[in-house]
Amino acid sequence: MPSLEQQTGEIIDWLHRLYEQRLPFNRVLGIEVTSLTAEGGTMAFAMREDLVGNVFHRTLHGGVISAVLDAVGGLTASASLVARTACLSEEEVGAIFARVGTIDLRVDYLRPGKGERFSASGRIMRTGRKVAVVRMEMHNEKAVLVAVGTGTYMVG
Amino acid sequence: MPSLEQQTGEIIDWLHRLYEQRLPFNRVLGIEVTSLTAEGGTMAFAMREDLVGNVFHRTLHGGVISAVLDAVGGLTASASLVARTACLSEEEVGAIFARVGTIDLRVDYLRPGKGERFSASGRIMRTGRKVAVVRMEMHNEKAVLVAVGTGTYMVG
Amino acid sequence: MPSLEQQTGEIIDWLHRLYEQRLPFNRVLGIEVTSLTAEGGTMAFAMREDLVGNVFHRTLHGGVISAVLDAVGGLTASASLVARTACLSEEEVGAIFARVGTIDLRVDYLRPGKGERFSASGRIMRTGRKVAVVRMEMHNEKAVLVAVGTGTYMVG
Amino acid sequence: MPSLEQQTGEIIDWLHRLYEQRLPFNRVLGIEVTSLTAEGGTMAFAMREDLVGNVFHRTLHGGVISAVLDAVGGLTASASLVARTACLSEEEVGAIFARVGTIDLRVDYLRPGKGERFSASGRIMRTGRKVAVVRMEMHNEKAVLVAVGTGTYMVG
Repeated sequence: MPSLEQQTGEIIDWLHRLYEQRLPFNRVLGIEVTSLTAEGGTMAFAMREDLVGNVFHRTLHGGVISAVLDAVGGLTASASLVARTACLSEEEVGAIFARVGTIDLRVDYLRPGKGERFSASGRIMRTGRKVAVVRMEMHNEKAVLVAVGTGTYMVG
Repeated sequence: MPSLEQQTGEIIDWLHRLYEQRLPFNRVLGIEVTSLTAEGGTMAFAMREDLVGNVFHRTLHGGVISAVLDAVGGLTASASLVARTACLSEEEVGAIFARVGTIDLRVDYLRPGKGERFSASGRIMRTGRKVAVVRMEMHNEKAVLVAVGTGTYMVG
Repeated sequence: MPSLEQQTGEIIDWLHRLYEQRLPFNRVLGIEVTSLTAEGGTMAFAMREDLVGNVFHRTLHGGVISAVLDAVGGLTASASLVARTACLSEEEVGAIFARVGTIDLRVDYLRPGKGERFSASGRIMRTGRKVAVVRMEMHNEKAVLVAVGTGTYMVG
Repeated sequence: MPSLEQQTGEIIDWLHRLYEQRLPFNRVLGIEVTSLTAEGGTMAFAMREDLVGNVFHRTLHGGVISAVLDAVGGLTASASLVARTACLSEEEVGAIFARVGTIDLRVDYLRPGKGERFSASGRIMRTGRKVAVVRMEMHNEKAVLVAVGTGTYMVG
């Protein structure tokens, strides 16, 4: 029987693969999970021609930014639930994460999405029994803050 | 010299092509502009395997929903500027639309994004000299309201 | 024993008094509940010197607008729960409404809050088991749309 | 003729008095400005019976929280403009601050508004020529984070 620590590590690994490999639209965006602990996650993706939204300035589509912020917010909300999975069966663990969903999202587009590579991170503001609130940020490779956001997620 | 009506029609056609054909990420999403007047626009897109975000329930990725709502909001904000283009040169008209950008976006995910085909529409709530506010809605092919949103756009 | 219709009417009356008379800050704002059914509510309040926020233009404080929109959103979310109170004891009914709380609130300030009397109304966009989403609007006495908002409320 | 430093200090003092003494609804809320520099401001206010919104739990009205967050956001956006007032006449300086207004506001109610004294602070995320974005936080006297918010302000 795995220790609690082993189990937590396995669930973190499973979430990592889920967000990076198994969510089709995350693959369209080219998202990599660059770090993940129970405290939160970070993601990165490279600029590509087909992620452009403003053809005049060749900057990221606002929808790419909102999609990545939503993804890292959902990842962070999910990671905050890992402690709840202790002593549950695989099926029960799956049910916990299947229930996670975005209730609402706000995105502030602070500066044009110019750059070669972007990273996004989430920070938990509240984890209740039913609802989690996460604040998110996206920077380019020069550490310019491109966008911030806040998401409310169903977690129970 | 084209009449004002002709000119307006031409600019509407140009916006239609811009949003449907020339914005790379809109093509990734498979967005069609299904109607467009100076009063606002509607868009539609088909469900596809790679737009899935929740593999447990096979529903649209929240980021697809936010991206399409942002796109139809930007289209509606742009269409509201057509009246300002009277008597301007082509270059000046281009400059007006190049300046349009999302300041912030709020999305409420009301029901799971289940369906075969989705449509999204925008309605102008305010057009100021500098800022426009648009409310957006997305329905599936059974007229189920999947999501609503509000966007604030720079327009001057 | 009261019929279901009587009971619903009594609960609506109780909510009406709760929001108009028993919430101290609603009295500070001078809020009246002008209509209330299980489908939603409307509120009104008069302009007063001490509700001013911008001394240059003598317009409503943004915080008055957000406070009234939150109040009418909470009233609408509460009214949507009336159907759930059938056959419950008084204590159980109280517990349902004590649980109602705002999770998040978004307000768009569309036009300056100028006027003599303002009215605000709410419309339910979603009522789930745990969360309700309400869209709100505020007009002045000339039917000018001053602000719109969206609130997410805990309801279970 | 005052030095630039003196002038900046005077404008900061003027903003301090404006937000604390001259905005009627801020006085209703009992807001004090507890610190103010060109980098941002903080405010505090005491719990009072008439600021209660939930009579079941005797917590702050959500509208009090949104009003204070909006106020500290507007104060922070205004303070960020002080550098622009160099070498302007008194009238021109007044015109700059008269133009500041909230475009939109999001408030996340993280924990019940319980406490004796609350403080709120703002942090500038972006100051453009026309629009500023501020993130705000409110804590009680035990340093419990009660609410966070984000506001978009017209500044030009």
